[in-house]
Amino acid sequence: MANFCLMIQYDGSRYNGWQRQGNTPNTIQEKLENILEDLYGEPVDLNGSGRTDAGVHALRQIANYRIPRLLSRYSCQQIQQFLNSELPKDIRVLAVEKASERFHARLSAVGKLYEYRIDCGEVANIFERRYLLRMEDPLNIERMREAAKYLIGTHDFKSFCDNPQMKKSTERTIFDISMDLQDGILRIRYHGDGFLYHMVRILTGTLIEVGTGDLMPSLIPSIIEEKDRSSAGFTAPPHGLFLVDVYYE
Amino acid sequence: MANFCLMIQYDGSRYNGWQRQGNTPNTIQEKLENILEDLYGEPVDLNGSGRTDAGVHALRQIANYRIPRLLSRYSCQQIQQFLNSELPKDIRVLAVEKASERFHARLSAVGKLYEYRIDCGEVANIFERRYLLRMEDPLNIERMREAAKYLIGTHDFKSFCDNPQMKKSTERTIFDISMDLQDGILRIRYHGDGFLYHMVRILTGTLIEVGTGDLMPSLIPSIIEEKDRSSAGFTAPPHGLFLVDVYYE
Repeated sequence: MANFCLMIQYDGSRYNGWQRQGNTPNTIQEKLENILEDLYGEPVDLNGSGRTDAGVHALRQIANYRIPRLLSRYSCQQIQQFLNSELPKDIRVLAVEKASERFHARLSAVGKLYEYRIDCGEVANIFERRYLLRMEDPLNIERMREAAKYLIGTHDFKSFCDNPQMKKSTERTIFDISMDLQDGILRIRYHGDGFLYHMVRILTGTLIEVGTGDLMPSLIPSIIEEKDRSSAGFTAPPHGLFLVDVYYE
Repeated sequence: MANFCLMIQYDGSRYNGWQRQGNTPNTIQEKLENILEDLYGEPVDLNGSGRTDAGVHALRQIANYRIPRLLSRYSCQQIQQFLNSELPKDIRVLAVEKASERFHARLSAVGKLYEYRIDCGEVANIFERRYLLRMEDPLNIERMREAAKYLIGTHDFKSFCDNPQMKKSTERTIFDISMDLQDGILRIRYHGDGFLYHMVRILTGTLIEVGTGDLMPSLIPSIIEEKDRSSAGFTAPPHGLFLVDVYYE
């Protein structure tokens, strides 16, 4: 089998998330798979590095697909050009590469980087407004940094998961959370080995509640401890969230 | 009379340009004037520094209005807050200042800076696509710079005006044209004392034709000389154009 790896960028605003799902139309995976099926004349299964929710964007999502060598008659460049010529303007293939046979975009991933963007400028940003959560109340970023320190590390993040039926382990490791304020835009970056359903958005909602003064930074350890979704903050809306990168060994 | 100066930013995508016009709905001037009328309980005439076409954006448009001192019961901050609370999200008032009685946003202006943004990256930009003209063909920027040199200075720019009935002088001075390519985005900045109808867009279309090799840079002087719209290049679409700033003495 030939194994191809795609680097994909998308504006998730119009889509029902990454993952193809039974009757839900308009997913990013489906758009890509349909075009690959047109290219090869055979159905193609695309493995994404992970799902992104409806409305969430990706600066660099990774996916791979395997096809029999006999069908593999196109170069990486040809695949990229065909995909970009057929895809809507809010999805682009940044690159196509041949991968080793064992590479799997989800199973081989060792880390992910997400970024949440918050507009806390004096006047609301116009030109990036579709990709920013607007906050009118001031945020105390030093307090947010203090709270973030408690989140870094290996924890059971059940309190930060919107799937109460989750049967698999809810333990994850966050390697780092960094915050950068520039021109009124706060970017919170989460680097971890993987994230639960809505986890980055709940982490962000919780940090925002710390920033506005509704929550004490020192309460974070007990929120983790309680393993109860209702202890953590609100689920921040999807439009401010970007999957920035996926890491492999 | 009290004289107030507004600094305004807008995403022009949804609007029929700056200027209120008889039956044309949805202009930026009209949106602002209606809210100011609600504020003061009297009609207010807003003078913009100049019109921007339908679909053209502004990073900093300047406008002023005069009202009788007796009616002037709000501070600059109150005016700004009321406008921003009532305006749609694609128009923001960046600041409100008291101006000298003689200040007039259009008549007092001594220069304007426009920027045209072109996406010539290998893969089309997704997140700024609404504000970029996408070019698939490569552009030779050195040739464009060469052509731009001929445009700088005081000329009769009749060839670069889309109003054939223009009765006033078509002489204008371009102080500078600069080009900056970063991350696949070419920004062409035009600094001049004023610009004719569609002039920046025709200058851009002409420079693009130079960049693609369809036009020799050395032909620019004869295009100016001919004073004929059909000699110059195409009118670049509005969505890549920004009014960046307006200058006063």
